Amino acid sequence: MAAAAPPPPPTEPSTKMPETALPRHPVFTRIRLGTPSDVPYIHKLMYQMAVFERLTHQFSATESSYSSTLFTPTNQPFQSITIFILEVSPNPFTDTHFDNNPFYKPSTKVVNLDLPIDDPEKELFRTQHGNEVFVAGFVLFFPNYSTFLGKHGFYVEDLFVRECYRRKGFGRMLLTAVAKQAVKMGYGRVEWTVLDWNLNAINFYEDMGANVLQDWRLCRLTGDNLESYGATD
Amino acid sequence: MAAAAPPPPPTEPSTKMPETALPRHPVFTRIRLGTPSDVPYIHKLMYQMAVFERLTHQFSATESSYSSTLFTPTNQPFQSITIFILEVSPNPFTDTHFDNNPFYKPSTKVVNLDLPIDDPEKELFRTQHGNEVFVAGFVLFFPNYSTFLGKHGFYVEDLFVRECYRRKGFGRMLLTAVAKQAVKMGYGRVEWTVLDWNLNAINFYEDMGANVLQDWRLCRLTGDNLESYGATD
Repeated sequence: MAAAAPPPPPTEPSTKMPETALPRHPVFTRIRLGTPSDVPYIHKLMYQMAVFERLTHQFSATESSYSSTLFTPTNQPFQSITIFILEVSPNPFTDTHFDNNPFYKPSTKVVNLDLPIDDPEKELFRTQHGNEVFVAGFVLFFPNYSTFLGKHGFYVEDLFVRECYRRKGFGRMLLTAVAKQAVKMGYGRVEWTVLDWNLNAINFYEDMGANVLQDWRLCRLTGDNLESYGATD
Repeated sequence: MAAAAPPPPPTEPSTKMPETALPRHPVFTRIRLGTPSDVPYIHKLMYQMAVFERLTHQFSATESSYSSTLFTPTNQPFQSITIFILEVSPNPFTDTHFDNNPFYKPSTKVVNLDLPIDDPEKELFRTQHGNEVFVAGFVLFFPNYSTFLGKHGFYVEDLFVRECYRRKGFGRMLLTAVAKQAVKMGYGRVEWTVLDWNLNAINFYEDMGANVLQDWRLCRLTGDNLESYGATD
């Protein structure tokens, strides 16, 4: 820790940056496609998201339901449900698991923080992809379509960063990765929803260039009301 | 027209239904998968929808953009963008174009109306699928995903019935066809959006069993704001 280090030796005045601006706590980040072996992390993250949204009473997914729906042989990334996983590490990534993925080359970045991150759940989210590599968040999205543009887009169903990693730009990195992919594919829109009481999120999304459409409401047919249509003529 | 017909001859009292309850104006309806040859109809319908939604300033799609995005070789019905077309006719359907479609067997129904439909645009929407067969509406939808359920669903991007065919149950037939397909595939939800000023639509959707979620807002990143992400690190 810097606070315990001896004071630096006296030096001549120089043009170097002052020491306080040096990167004290680098965090190495990697955004990559999710894989079937991520399902246990995904399930924990999804449940934490339901807690955050105060909607655990609507949560019934299991690891098994994710395995059988998210990673089927026909689920080609970007053509169907797609998950980007955010991994973080205090060390550079040394594994090459994902470097030759034909659909997506991982995006890596170093973020320099003033304070170290204290992750109380690191053992729950530790991966096998190197020394001290942890899952910090994810974004789940799939193609949608704009009739008015005559173009595909992406719909972001979920964006989630674990609590101890928030307010450090990681959510922005995940959403940016989706936006970049949309541009790369010539898509016309990225859309998602936000709870109207979540002003932090609304400010964040507007700052990223999104419009929050005030006059549309989401309609949902589910449960018994949906099942009843199975028997209609 | 009934109004111009001679009065019926006097008859003995009988137990028959009164003549006014007899089906005077049957409309034969068929819901089937859209095909590339529907693109001209689809484009006209989409534009009419933009007019109805007072959003023509956002409409830039062309027949060409629909052709190249809606009916590509990899676009398998229900796995990607899917369109159901509603055809109507004063006569029974006699063609067999769609009967052996491997993905969807057309759904046909006869609706008996009190008054005939006067379609001022029938020549624009006349199909080659029989005598006096017209396109009356469509629904466009694609798979989405509920993280909380761990199941797929369908998202209905557009539901549209031409003006002269409204308030006759055709919109309900189209949305019911999507709900039935969702149930058939074991999906957990059908979702869509509605403009908050469109109270007729809101009442109609609630009557169909949908919940209108008041506290979610749609966020959209598009145009230059989206394109700017193409150049980010």
